[in-house]
Amino acid sequence: MHQDNLKSSGLRGMTAGKTALSTVGKDGVGLTYRGYSIEDLSMYAGFEETVWLLFYGKLPSQQELTTYKEKLKKLRDIPEPVKFCLEKIPATTHPMDVMRSACSLLGDIEPEGSFEHQYNSAERILASLPSMLLYWYQFSHHGIRIDPLTDEETLAGHFLHLLHNKTPTADHRRCLDVSLILYAEHEFNASTFTARVCAATLSDIHSCVTGAIGTLKGPLHGGANEAAMEMIERYQTPAEAKNGLLAMLEKKEKIMGFGHAIYRDKDPRNNIIKEWSAKLAQSCGDKRYYPVSEIIEKTMWEEKKLCANADFYHASAYHFMNIPTKLFTPLFVCARSSGWMSHVMEQRADNRLIRPSAEYIGPELQKWQPIESR
Amino acid sequence: MHQDNLKSSGLRGMTAGKTALSTVGKDGVGLTYRGYSIEDLSMYAGFEETVWLLFYGKLPSQQELTTYKEKLKKLRDIPEPVKFCLEKIPATTHPMDVMRSACSLLGDIEPEGSFEHQYNSAERILASLPSMLLYWYQFSHHGIRIDPLTDEETLAGHFLHLLHNKTPTADHRRCLDVSLILYAEHEFNASTFTARVCAATLSDIHSCVTGAIGTLKGPLHGGANEAAMEMIERYQTPAEAKNGLLAMLEKKEKIMGFGHAIYRDKDPRNNIIKEWSAKLAQSCGDKRYYPVSEIIEKTMWEEKKLCANADFYHASAYHFMNIPTKLFTPLFVCARSSGWMSHVMEQRADNRLIRPSAEYIGPELQKWQPIESR
Repeated sequence: MHQDNLKSSGLRGMTAGKTALSTVGKDGVGLTYRGYSIEDLSMYAGFEETVWLLFYGKLPSQQELTTYKEKLKKLRDIPEPVKFCLEKIPATTHPMDVMRSACSLLGDIEPEGSFEHQYNSAERILASLPSMLLYWYQFSHHGIRIDPLTDEETLAGHFLHLLHNKTPTADHRRCLDVSLILYAEHEFNASTFTARVCAATLSDIHSCVTGAIGTLKGPLHGGANEAAMEMIERYQTPAEAKNGLLAMLEKKEKIMGFGHAIYRDKDPRNNIIKEWSAKLAQSCGDKRYYPVSEIIEKTMWEEKKLCANADFYHASAYHFMNIPTKLFTPLFVCARSSGWMSHVMEQRADNRLIRPSAEYIGPELQKWQPIESR
Repeated sequence: MHQDNLKSSGLRGMTAGKTALSTVGKDGVGLTYRGYSIEDLSMYAGFEETVWLLFYGKLPSQQELTTYKEKLKKLRDIPEPVKFCLEKIPATTHPMDVMRSACSLLGDIEPEGSFEHQYNSAERILASLPSMLLYWYQFSHHGIRIDPLTDEETLAGHFLHLLHNKTPTADHRRCLDVSLILYAEHEFNASTFTARVCAATLSDIHSCVTGAIGTLKGPLHGGANEAAMEMIERYQTPAEAKNGLLAMLEKKEKIMGFGHAIYRDKDPRNNIIKEWSAKLAQSCGDKRYYPVSEIIEKTMWEEKKLCANADFYHASAYHFMNIPTKLFTPLFVCARSSGWMSHVMEQRADNRLIRPSAEYIGPELQKWQPIESR
C-alpha cells in the first residue's frame, strides 16, 4: 500500500518492525507464541512455562521450569520504600494508575542498570507486580498490611491467595493461569508498541513497562473486560439481556468485548476462556452470568456479525473467581508484562530509534506580532 | 516510498499522523511552533507565552499572559503524599526515574478524570514538575525540605530559585527561559510519539507524560546534553580538546551533541543557545568551557561535516548557571512536557488508535512437545 493512502491511519497495516514472538491471526495458524499455538499452550503449558518460552525462545525442560518457578517465587517481595509509597495512594485511585506508579517506583529503588541485567529485572517486575497491586488494594480498601509472600507455586495462585487470603481451589488457580497465558502476548498492539518505542531510545525496562501500563489503561485498549462485566451485571435473565442489548444496539451504543482490529471471524482466545467460564459457572451453581453472557454473544453475532473477543468471557470467568471488576485490567498487566518485556529485549537485540514523521497541517510562517498589538 | 522498502526502518520518513504544532527543518521555514519561527520566539517571547501558543493555538494578549502566569504560579505546590514518596527515593536514583515516578504519583493523587479537565491537568503537571524534581533533589542530596513555592514569575526563574535557594540574575533567568522555548516542541520525536500512542488509547494525560519521560530518558534521545558536558569537562584548553577529540574520532567513538536525524546543515536552535552560552561565559569570566566547546564544534565540522545540535551549547550554558549535569535531561522534561501535552490534546481531538503491524520472522507452527520429552 502506498504511503499517501495511509495518512492518519494510525499506522494500520504498516510494518513498524520485526518480531519472532507471536503471530496474530495468521492464515491457518492463528495466534502462536514462538510458533506454538495458543490452543496447545492453554491446554498443556503453565504461565511460567509460557514466560520462559517468550523470554528464552524455547520450551523449558522440567528441571529448568522447576528452577524458574522457584526463582520467580523468591522475587515476589516488595521493597520497603515502595510499600511506604503504596500506602500513600488512596483507595479511590484507578488501580492501573497504581500499577504504573508501582512499576516506576520499583525502578527507582532497584534500577536495571546495564542491559546485562535485563532478565533479572524483567523477572523481578513480573513476580512483584501482583504483590504491589494487592498490597495497595488490601491496605487502601481494608486497612490490612499483607505479607506479600505466599507458598503458591504459580503467579496465578499467588494472586488469588493474596486477594482472598486463602488457598485457592485447583480450578480457580488453573483458570487464572490459562487467562494469563491467553493475555501474555499479542504482537504490536498499542501498549507493546509503546514499550518498543521507549526501548528504542535505549531507555531502561522499568520505563518501557511503566509506559506500556499507562497505554493499556486506555478504554480503547485494556478496559474491555471491565466494561463487559458492567454490562453483563445489568441483567438478571437472558431475556432481559437480549432486550437490553437490542435497545443498546438501536441507540448505536458501543458493546465492549466484541470485534477486534485484526480477528474478523473469531478470536481464538474466546473459545478457550469460554469453556473455563462454563466450567466455573457450573461448579459455583451460577444461573445468571453465564446464560446472560451466552445470549449476548449469540445476539451480537446474529445482529452485527461481531464475534466475542478474548475479553468477553474473561468478565464472567473472573467474576466467578470473586475478582473485583476494578482488578480485571491490572490482571491483564500481570499477564501482558511478559509480552512487553519480551518485545523490549527483542527491540534491544536489533535496535533502531523509532521516529516517524508527521503531516503538517498548521499555519504557514507567520510574522511576529508584538504583545501590545495583539 | 513503498512499504516493503521500509521494514525495520524505525518508521523513518513514514507519516504517522497529522500535526499543526510544529515544522521541523521544513524548507525555507526551519523550526516553527504554530507558524512562528524559533528565532522570533526565542527573541521576543517567554516560555509561558510559548506554552499558551502551543496549547491554545495563538499568541496571548498581555492580559491573557499575565493571568496565565499567575495561574501557573499557583499550581507549583506538591501534594503531601507525593512529597512523602519523593522523600523515599534515594539520591542515587536517576533523576529521570524520579520525574517519571513524580508525574505518575501526581496522577494518582490528582487524576485528570474527564478530558474536559485536560488543560487544568496539563498546567498542573507543567507547573509542578520543577518543584517535584527539586524537592527530591534537595531532600536526597542535602537533607533539606524546601518550600516548593517561590515568587518567581516564570518557570525558569522558579527552577533556578529552588535549585540555588536565591533569586537568580536576570541573565540566568532569561537564558533558561530561552532554553525552555528551544526545547518545548519538536514534532514526532520518540518521546512525543510515545505520548501520542498512549493518548490514542484514550488513556489519561499523566500516563502519556509518564511514558514520554521514560522514553526521553534513553541515551539515543534526551541524554545528549549531559554526555556533551561530560566530554567538554575532560579538557582544560582548546588544544587539549582538539587532540582529545581527534583521538576519539580515530577510535570511531560517538561524539554527543552533533548531527541530527532531520537537520543536516544546521540545527536552528544551535545559534541561539550558542549566543547565550557566549554571553554567560563572558559575564562569569570563563576561559575554559566556552573556548573548548568552540574548538570541538569547529573540529567536528572540519572532520565530519557534522553540525552542533541544540544539545551541544546547552551543556556549557547550563554549566555557567551552576546547574548540576544530572539535572540537564530533567530540564528537557520541564520544557518538552509542554509539547507532549499539546500533542496529547491534538491526538484526542482527531483520534484513531495507533496500532501498526509487525513482520513475523519467527518459527512456523510447531508441534507441541510434552515436558518429559524436552
